[in-house]
Amino acid sequence: MKVVIVGGVAGGASCAARLRRLDEDAEILMVDRGPYVSFANCGLPYHVGGVIEKEASLLVADERLFRERFAIRVRTRCEVTSISTENKTVELRNVETGEVNTEPYDKLVLSPGAAPIRPPLPGIDLPGIFTVRTVPDARGIRAWIEATKSKRAVVVGGGFIGLEMAENLIRRGLDVTVVELLDQVMPPLDPEIARLVETHLKKHGVKLALGDGVAGFQKSGEAGLEVLTQSGKAHPADLVILAIGVRPETSLAKLAGLALGERGGIRVDEHMRTSNPDIFAVGDAVEVKDFVTGQWTLIPLAGPANRQGRIAADVIAGRDSRYRGTQGTAICGIFGLAVASTGASEKLLVRTGEKDFEKIYLNPRSHAGYYPGAKILSMKILFRKSDGRLLGAQAVGEDGVDKRIDAMAMVIQMGGTVQDLEESELCYAPQFGGAKDPVNFAGMIAADVLRGDMPLSHWGEDGFLLDVRDPEEFSGGHAPDALNIPLNALRSRLGELPRDREILVYCHSGQRAYYATRILLQNGFAARNLSGGILAREILLPK
Amino acid sequence: MKVVIVGGVAGGASCAARLRRLDEDAEILMVDRGPYVSFANCGLPYHVGGVIEKEASLLVADERLFRERFAIRVRTRCEVTSISTENKTVELRNVETGEVNTEPYDKLVLSPGAAPIRPPLPGIDLPGIFTVRTVPDARGIRAWIEATKSKRAVVVGGGFIGLEMAENLIRRGLDVTVVELLDQVMPPLDPEIARLVETHLKKHGVKLALGDGVAGFQKSGEAGLEVLTQSGKAHPADLVILAIGVRPETSLAKLAGLALGERGGIRVDEHMRTSNPDIFAVGDAVEVKDFVTGQWTLIPLAGPANRQGRIAADVIAGRDSRYRGTQGTAICGIFGLAVASTGASEKLLVRTGEKDFEKIYLNPRSHAGYYPGAKILSMKILFRKSDGRLLGAQAVGEDGVDKRIDAMAMVIQMGGTVQDLEESELCYAPQFGGAKDPVNFAGMIAADVLRGDMPLSHWGEDGFLLDVRDPEEFSGGHAPDALNIPLNALRSRLGELPRDREILVYCHSGQRAYYATRILLQNGFAARNLSGGILAREILLPK
Repeated sequence: MKVVIVGGVAGGASCAARLRRLDEDAEILMVDRGPYVSFANCGLPYHVGGVIEKEASLLVADERLFRERFAIRVRTRCEVTSISTENKTVELRNVETGEVNTEPYDKLVLSPGAAPIRPPLPGIDLPGIFTVRTVPDARGIRAWIEATKSKRAVVVGGGFIGLEMAENLIRRGLDVTVVELLDQVMPPLDPEIARLVETHLKKHGVKLALGDGVAGFQKSGEAGLEVLTQSGKAHPADLVILAIGVRPETSLAKLAGLALGERGGIRVDEHMRTSNPDIFAVGDAVEVKDFVTGQWTLIPLAGPANRQGRIAADVIAGRDSRYRGTQGTAICGIFGLAVASTGASEKLLVRTGEKDFEKIYLNPRSHAGYYPGAKILSMKILFRKSDGRLLGAQAVGEDGVDKRIDAMAMVIQMGGTVQDLEESELCYAPQFGGAKDPVNFAGMIAADVLRGDMPLSHWGEDGFLLDVRDPEEFSGGHAPDALNIPLNALRSRLGELPRDREILVYCHSGQRAYYATRILLQNGFAARNLSGGILAREILLPK
Repeated sequence: MKVVIVGGVAGGASCAARLRRLDEDAEILMVDRGPYVSFANCGLPYHVGGVIEKEASLLVADERLFRERFAIRVRTRCEVTSISTENKTVELRNVETGEVNTEPYDKLVLSPGAAPIRPPLPGIDLPGIFTVRTVPDARGIRAWIEATKSKRAVVVGGGFIGLEMAENLIRRGLDVTVVELLDQVMPPLDPEIARLVETHLKKHGVKLALGDGVAGFQKSGEAGLEVLTQSGKAHPADLVILAIGVRPETSLAKLAGLALGERGGIRVDEHMRTSNPDIFAVGDAVEVKDFVTGQWTLIPLAGPANRQGRIAADVIAGRDSRYRGTQGTAICGIFGLAVASTGASEKLLVRTGEKDFEKIYLNPRSHAGYYPGAKILSMKILFRKSDGRLLGAQAVGEDGVDKRIDAMAMVIQMGGTVQDLEESELCYAPQFGGAKDPVNFAGMIAADVLRGDMPLSHWGEDGFLLDVRDPEEFSGGHAPDALNIPLNALRSRLGELPRDREILVYCHSGQRAYYATRILLQNGFAARNLSGGILAREILLPK
């Protein structure tokens, strides 16, 4: 059996190595258009920033390793120019020499990835405008910064790569502006959670120009550029990073006449098989089923690409492996803050027409408050109202974000509920967590909502506002028109509250308001807890 | 309804606060023998060590808070002297004044905890011998160290509290010896995993005297003591910490004539109800079902105690909450190392007669190797052979231990399998994890074993030993009689291997040996992978 694998990074390389383990006799050829296979593209921003100093560190496995260890033939700087599905051959061209040859295949695996979007704007090809996809890209950016002594950078796009680049350019001493078409950074997050990230970015010197698209680029001064926006602004820049997003590479699929999906990716079945039974596709180029919504989507992530590569190899070797879909678990570290999410966001649920869900906000400490160094975690949890099923989670904080999102990713994967979060038994010692972990708190709050113990409200709804914090907290800033009755005085001051209006209760983060809500409900008041307290107000109703 | 709660720490305090939220009208009285309620007993070692400098930090909630916020009456320094289940009354005695009064109850909740074991050894009552359970205990230890200028401490018992005390006493500049009857520290871990902890303890100056029980204590010199052991040794000490373990406090249960279990704890049903329908018991005093083995056991942990308290409150308020059992998820931080486990250990499975299980060892990096600062995680995973169900996990390392054990704790809770670990989609950015996370690796390895792709062996078994590391690694130390053929040369040197013997393959940590095993199997050899490589040999077959 001869297998040709096109694309030698995450999905392709995983597929090749796995296939060798399953079939010592298969003839495996892996080709890549670039100069390297199996390089660490997720490390590129950190190489630019000098955190990963040596370029060689990014090269996880090279041609020689594939040849010597896995008996896999590798051709780099090699592109596919045509595919004959009838003859089952691919035509390969050496991009340096132009030499062309034809290779037969029994199975073909496409792992071409996704290409950074480079919109055809005026000036897009001016020197100093870079994308961040390959090792030569990173090398080029480093060289440009050194050669031009760049002082000012504009990063176009406020997604994961854009923000990682912003951090790393600041680390190199540049002045950085992020221009983003949406009115938020980090599109997978809901905007109010992204707001926490925006505040943090500004604190660390990143200038944000949100809600403004790029209109073009022009030269300015000697070596400088200007980034022109749709609103008419001109941001000066010695260096421009384009991180607008990526587009699945489907040219090969088109050459082979494969079916594409509505989102523009290669369509595959759960075995990673394309519309041609002898051709498989994996990684950022394919559409996947969103694990939560069940809808086709594009989620370019390294973990899923690796698993898809393994599954394609399994199926080629005659096994029944299936891909279960992608949850979109992702994390980004920016200036000491971690931002992570898994499953569906609220805006995704709204976009898919889902109505059977509720959300909560909470702000627990990363570990026991009595042990030094605990940090606030800002969390948002989405769950199904009808059965409690966990649909998604987002968290931002300086400590312990990854592990809470990982635990909840596992629950989503297992089809679990907020009650499962409530009951979970996680590691507790005071420097690591709490006897009630933030994951437990999330489950307890959500389950209390589902059981009817804690009717919820969200900022922006109408009602009589009751602030149950202490007077010092109240005087430091509160919602307009709110009445302040500290929780501990509430039982003796019930007479001050209206019986003909719904009372919306809040505190700092939601816990005292929960206690107050319980007191009010049991005393016959109509009361709901403003989820997430004043902290949630700050992100949901910014001034 | 009047509810009397005996014991005001984790389980009792949780029960009281939850009950108030569910029932604004209940009359709630919480009593505790000690001077404080709701204090952070897990923080006591760190207060001794000065990490938590202020004693007040340990007092999470006080009498006044319970009274003002929850309208709960609290009596500290108050013990129960008798219980009349017929009249439904308890007799309470003020331990300071001796004053006695009788309180009626509709429901009684026992949360007396577990007491540190103080064996009746010669000299046990000498000054300078302390247990670590209460705030006054910690205060006493601090005062003793200052007053006597203690230089040498002996910690009796190498469990979690013993080791936390050892670390904190070293932090205060004392010379510390840990004396432990078992031949390992951290009894919930399997001994070979505990060995990693022992090496780390020694590296940080802790002297270990394992496999030696304490026979008694005697005075030595002016203010000094000697700890005498069964083997005849005498360890000098200015301070002795007894951390041998705890015993459930069952005196109240006996007063009430309640059923006890075989392990000596109070027997409760899944609603936390004792053999008397009006009396509940929660926390360290009760026996719980081991979630994995289904057997009754004693697992004194704060998280479960809190959840049990909530469940008792729910049931008293007329709800159908049930406790699902305890997994024993636990973590301990010692000199920068984290040691954690969840579910069953191998020795527990063996003890319960379980045969349908397999184990693997692995040593993945805590995050992508190309990003600076990755640390090795030493992991052991136990799973059912017949269906892949995850039974237990243990991990040791300087980074990322807690989150891997948390993710696996979730899978155990959800009844998941190693295939679920294989497919899990966790947070990945190079500073947080890997495109294949250690959790994925654990699942992949275990699932490869179950699929028959990777027959396993363990150190100590007979066979032809093949070392597939590079010659430099081999010459740095190898198993006796092993043949060295580096992985990359294996295909061309198959002729050197026997066809009449089983070949046991190893490398540094197991990955290259897996590749080699695949090559050998497909070439008709009988081969198995020595799980965990030479790293596992170092802990399984120590010199």
